[in-house]
Amino acid sequence: MTKDNKIILHEFIDEVWNKKNLDTADRFIASYYIIHSDPGDQWEGQSLDLPTFKKRVLYSHQIFPDLHFAIKETIGEEDKVVINWDLEGTYNGGIPNLAATKKRVNVPGITIYYFANNKITGHRQIIDRLGFMQQIATKLQ
Amino acid sequence: MTKDNKIILHEFIDEVWNKKNLDTADRFIASYYIIHSDPGDQWEGQSLDLPTFKKRVLYSHQIFPDLHFAIKETIGEEDKVVINWDLEGTYNGGIPNLAATKKRVNVPGITIYYFANNKITGHRQIIDRLGFMQQIATKLQ
Repeated sequence: MTKDNKIILHEFIDEVWNKKNLDTADRFIASYYIIHSDPGDQWEGQSLDLPTFKKRVLYSHQIFPDLHFAIKETIGEEDKVVINWDLEGTYNGGIPNLAATKKRVNVPGITIYYFANNKITGHRQIIDRLGFMQQIATKLQ
Repeated sequence: MTKDNKIILHEFIDEVWNKKNLDTADRFIASYYIIHSDPGDQWEGQSLDLPTFKKRVLYSHQIFPDLHFAIKETIGEEDKVVINWDLEGTYNGGIPNLAATKKRVNVPGITIYYFANNKITGHRQIIDRLGFMQQIATKLQ
């Protein structure tokens, strides 16, 4: 089950987040998707239905039109799969009070994904938000 | 092995980090301890020997004299154990350019710990540094 969940998670990140095939989202996520904890995420603490989940992904794709999650490690146990990753992308604006500097960023994060019956039911995540803000403010393009 | 590593990790966090029994550190960590990734940590990318490891812990205890890591979840596979936690403490100063506001903070993080032969050989970690900075600047004591 854990091995299957790992494969499912990698496909999910690739299809929905990296390739932007939002129509495939229902193949991966459950009928609800809970953002258990994700500081800075405007849906933190909420349980999302499929349309709201897609809206959240679209929002990120508008912020980073070339968004790419590069997964580095995958650690699974029972119904949880942890990945650490680098978010790579060009900041196109859209985060309140942060002007669209069009800077390229590379920001690390770690996410715990929760599964039930091989569907993703939510996540808990920490992104290096401070590093992101420093990069969009100062890094050369 | 993974179950043992989980127990060892919990003891390590409790003894070394929360109870400040630095003399017990060599029971838990290997002869080297690598900070694979830890944005904001001044030892990031380095391999620490035992004295340097203790120096790093002491530095954190000076910054937060009442430091406490509250572990929330523990996920293990083979030689890796992931925990997510809240760092609770009162900011006593010591981080460059951040005045000692004596504000109490509660900051989430996720850490991947690496083991070999039931000893901790290093970690990879993301702390919500932006949340920390916002809390020490604005939160009521």
